[in-house]
Parts: sequence; structure tokens; C-alpha cells
Amino acid sequence: MTQTAQNISVGTKTIQVSEIFGPTIQGEGALIGKPTVFVRTGGCDYRCSWCDSLYAVLPEHKAEWHAMDTRQIFAEVERLSGHAPLLVTLSGGNPAIQPLEGLIDLGHEHGYTFAIETQGSVAQPWFAKLDYLTLSPKPPSSKQVTRWERLDRSILYATNARHTHEIQINLKIVIFDEDDYAYARYVAERYPAIPMYLQAGNHTPPQQAEEIDVSGILQRMDWLIQRTIADRWYGATVLPQLHTLLWGNKRGV
Amino acid sequence: MTQTAQNISVGTKTIQVSEIFGPTIQGEGALIGKPTVFVRTGGCDYRCSWCDSLYAVLPEHKAEWHAMDTRQIFAEVERLSGHAPLLVTLSGGNPAIQPLEGLIDLGHEHGYTFAIETQGSVAQPWFAKLDYLTLSPKPPSSKQVTRWERLDRSILYATNARHTHEIQINLKIVIFDEDDYAYARYVAERYPAIPMYLQAGNHTPPQQAEEIDVSGILQRMDWLIQRTIADRWYGATVLPQLHTLLWGNKRGV
Ligand code: SF4
Ligand code: SF4
Repeated sequence: MTQTAQNISVGTKTIQVSEIFGPTIQGEGALIGKPTVFVRTGGCDYRCSWCDSLYAVLPEHKAEWHAMDTRQIFAEVERLSGHAPLLVTLSGGNPAIQPLEGLIDLGHEHGYTFAIETQGSVAQPWFAKLDYLTLSPKPPSSKQVTRWERLDRSILYATNARHTHEIQINLKIVIFDEDDYAYARYVAERYPAIPMYLQAGNHTPPQQAEEIDVSGILQRMDWLIQRTIADRWYGATVLPQLHTLLWGNKRGV
Repeated sequence: MTQTAQNISVGTKTIQVSEIFGPTIQGEGALIGKPTVFVRTGGCDYRCSWCDSLYAVLPEHKAEWHAMDTRQIFAEVERLSGHAPLLVTLSGGNPAIQPLEGLIDLGHEHGYTFAIETQGSVAQPWFAKLDYLTLSPKPPSSKQVTRWERLDRSILYATNARHTHEIQINLKIVIFDEDDYAYARYVAERYPAIPMYLQAGNHTPPQQAEEIDVSGILQRMDWLIQRTIADRWYGATVLPQLHTLLWGNKRGV
């Protein structure tokens, strides 16, 4: 395939998009507080028991998704950001099952930077093109099974990128209970060089949109802080989901 | 002065300490969510209208402060952290008016790292020894006057450190209103290379300890996010004070 033919093929590959929104701030993890536009893709290989974005996961919502190509997505990102470069966050569902390499290339040409949030169940060589890779393997309470060799490979692909540019890799684990906490400790031991972010789980069902249980969320976060510190796990970072505190489970903010 | 004499003099210099507490998490700014022990010094050259730690500022509280030397402070930090190295945050009052160089040296010998939070009104050559320097110049609502040449010099001292080790410098500005926001924009233009953290001000009087106005704080943060994004100021990071949300204005957490 010639270079031109390849470019056209990247440009016309179809990406399932659940929603594109922002700019807003990133509400969690290593980039907390940073202005960003979210591109939320549709479809996921997981079914976490407490998933808060089933509308971007379940096939029965597919009719609400949009099949878009790279150029259409980037045009929307540019429109929302007023053509001023910013951080684009690829989330889902699992964005790693979509052909997003072309979007990253096109955005980079215009000065945009890219972060992805994925559970690490599908490793893609193009992770090497990202500016930030957040891997959020799912703890026991999710009822999903971690395939460690795929998480290893996700990290390997991103680590390779360090030959060409700076890429920040981090781990983020949502914690509901003691089993989840033990899982997070295991993950941190497995990947000691990668910064670890702990996040208190949100028990409030997403159906209840505005009626978020703020004090309950803060109480669980308090527990997680005390738990981490009692263990002298000083290398971890403990953060809430700011968007949940600010806007509940509302979509598009 | 011989090396030994100098060490003794550092060890016996008196530091005014309001409180030493933790480990807890850093509630704001660039190190948000990181476990840390706080060393809060007593005394300040400012009198911000909305100061939330007057007990560490006003001379009438001096009887509650402890005159401690470097070794005594570090012994308490080690006790609280269970002798496991972590981040020590030097705050106040204005910690820059205290002789803290010896504490930083001693802690470094034992693997501890050091962050300082200061308004930048007193520049110290020993800023070069820090791992993190947070400068929080005070906006118009504080009723204090910024002496820019001192802020410049604070940054210069810390920048010099880059010859010997990695030091992260950042700016943090508390914002209550439009004038404060305009001030923050000016500061960002003056120091374009330094990461800027914006923080919504806490109107709840510290006297009311537990009765913190969480929804009011979140509303002001929402305003600040919308304001920043409407301006396309995508380089800023907008964060709350987590400790205020979690624990109100309670001390020692
Ligand atoms: S991996 Fe994420 S999007 Fe997929 S089901 Fe789990 S929480 Fe939902
Ligand atoms: S500089 Fe800080 S400690 Fe000093 S008066 Fe202002 S807010 Fe209070």
C-alpha cells in the first residue's frame, strides 16, 4: 500500500462514537483539573458491575452511536475547542478497540495532545503515539477478570514510545472494598515504576443523575485515604471523581 | 566557620512551629492526593482578608506555637510517618521566613522529599534545595500587595536548582471574583513557562469548623471552570481544596 492509499484508509476508517463533549475539566486521575475535550467511543469488551457509562457499552445503545471517520471527529474537536489546541481525552467504553491512530496523528499535526483511558484488555501498538496512557485494570468488585499479559503488553507498547517522545503512563484503580484495595496493592507491586492513582468508587446508581450521594462519596474517599496511610503506602495518590461531585452522573459535562 | 560548627548551628536554629500533622493527603495544587506530613510554621508577613489559618499567622497565637530545632521537627516527622520516607509539606503562615534549610538537608539524607507553599514575598536561596516549590501570590481580594521583584527572585532561586536536581515549580492562585481571575491571567502571562493551578476560594468562615458550605464551594468551582474554559485558557488546571470538602476547616487532618 502506498503512503497516500494508507492515509486515505486511515481517514475513512469508521470509529463508533458515543459522544464528543467539552471543553470541560478532566475529573479524575493524573490529569485531574486539566481542560479537555472528551471523545467517548461506543463499545466495550467488559461488563463491569458498576459501569457508569453503559450507554457507551451495551449493543442495545448502538443506534445512539455515530459512525464517524477521523476527519469528522477532529472537525468536531476543533469546533468545540474554538480551534485552540488542547488535551483530547479518548474514553469509552473501551477506546482501544477503535482505530484511533489516524485521529492522534491528525490532532498532533495541529498541536493537540492525546490521553487515553482504557482497562488495558486490548493492547494496541499505536498506544506509542499517545501523550498520556491511563490504564485502569478492573478490581474484583467489577466481576471482570484481568488478563495480565495484555496489561503487560499495553505498557510495553507505550514504553517503546519513549524512544521518540515523552509519554506519561499511569495506573488508576477504582476501589469499593478491601478486595479491591488488595488488588490495587498487587498491581502496584507488579508495576512499581508506574504512578498509581486510587479512586473511591461511586455507589450512586447512574440512573439517579442529579441525586448524587456527595457525602457518601466523600466518606468512602475518607476511608480510602485512611486505609492507604495506615499501610504507609505513600507512593499512591488518592483522588475523587471531581465531575461526580460537581455535576453528579450528568452526561456531557 | 568549620563544617561541624555550621552543622551544629543549623541544628540549633529555632523554627516557630504551629503544628506538625499527618500523614494525610495534600488537598490542593500540583501534588493533590499525595500522602504527606505537614509542618506548619508560625508567623506571616501577610494578613490576607480570607486567611484560613490565622492561628499560624497572628502574634497573639504565638503562645500556642513551639520553638523547635531541625532535629526535633524531623524526629516528629519520622515518628508520624513510621520512619518511612514520604513527602513533607512546609506550609504556614509563611514558611519562607523560617530557617528551614537544615530540615530539608536532614530529611533528604533519610530519603524524604520536600515541598513548600509560600506566597513568594520572601525569596530564600535555599528554595534551590526543595523538590517542589508552590508559589501562591495573593490576588486583589486578599487586600495584600504583590511585590513582583520578590516573586521573580523566588523563581530565580528555584530555577538555579535545576543544575543540581529536578525541582518542580508551580503557581497557585485562589480566586474569589473577576478581579482575582484577571490577576491570575496576568501572573500566567508574566511566567508563561510555569504551570498554573487555579483554586476556587472558600467563603465559609473558618470559625464554623464543621459547617462547611460544600455546595457553595462546588458552585464557585463550577463558575471558575466555566470562566476559564470560556476564555480558552487551556493551560490552566482548576482544582478544589479536597481537604475542605472532606473535613471542612478542621485542623490537623
Ligand atoms: S471497562 Fe469501563 S466502559 Fe467497559 S464496562 Fe467496565 S467501567 Fe464500563
Ligand atoms: S499568606 Fe497565607 S498564611 Fe499568610 S495571611 Fe495570607 S493566607 Fe494567611
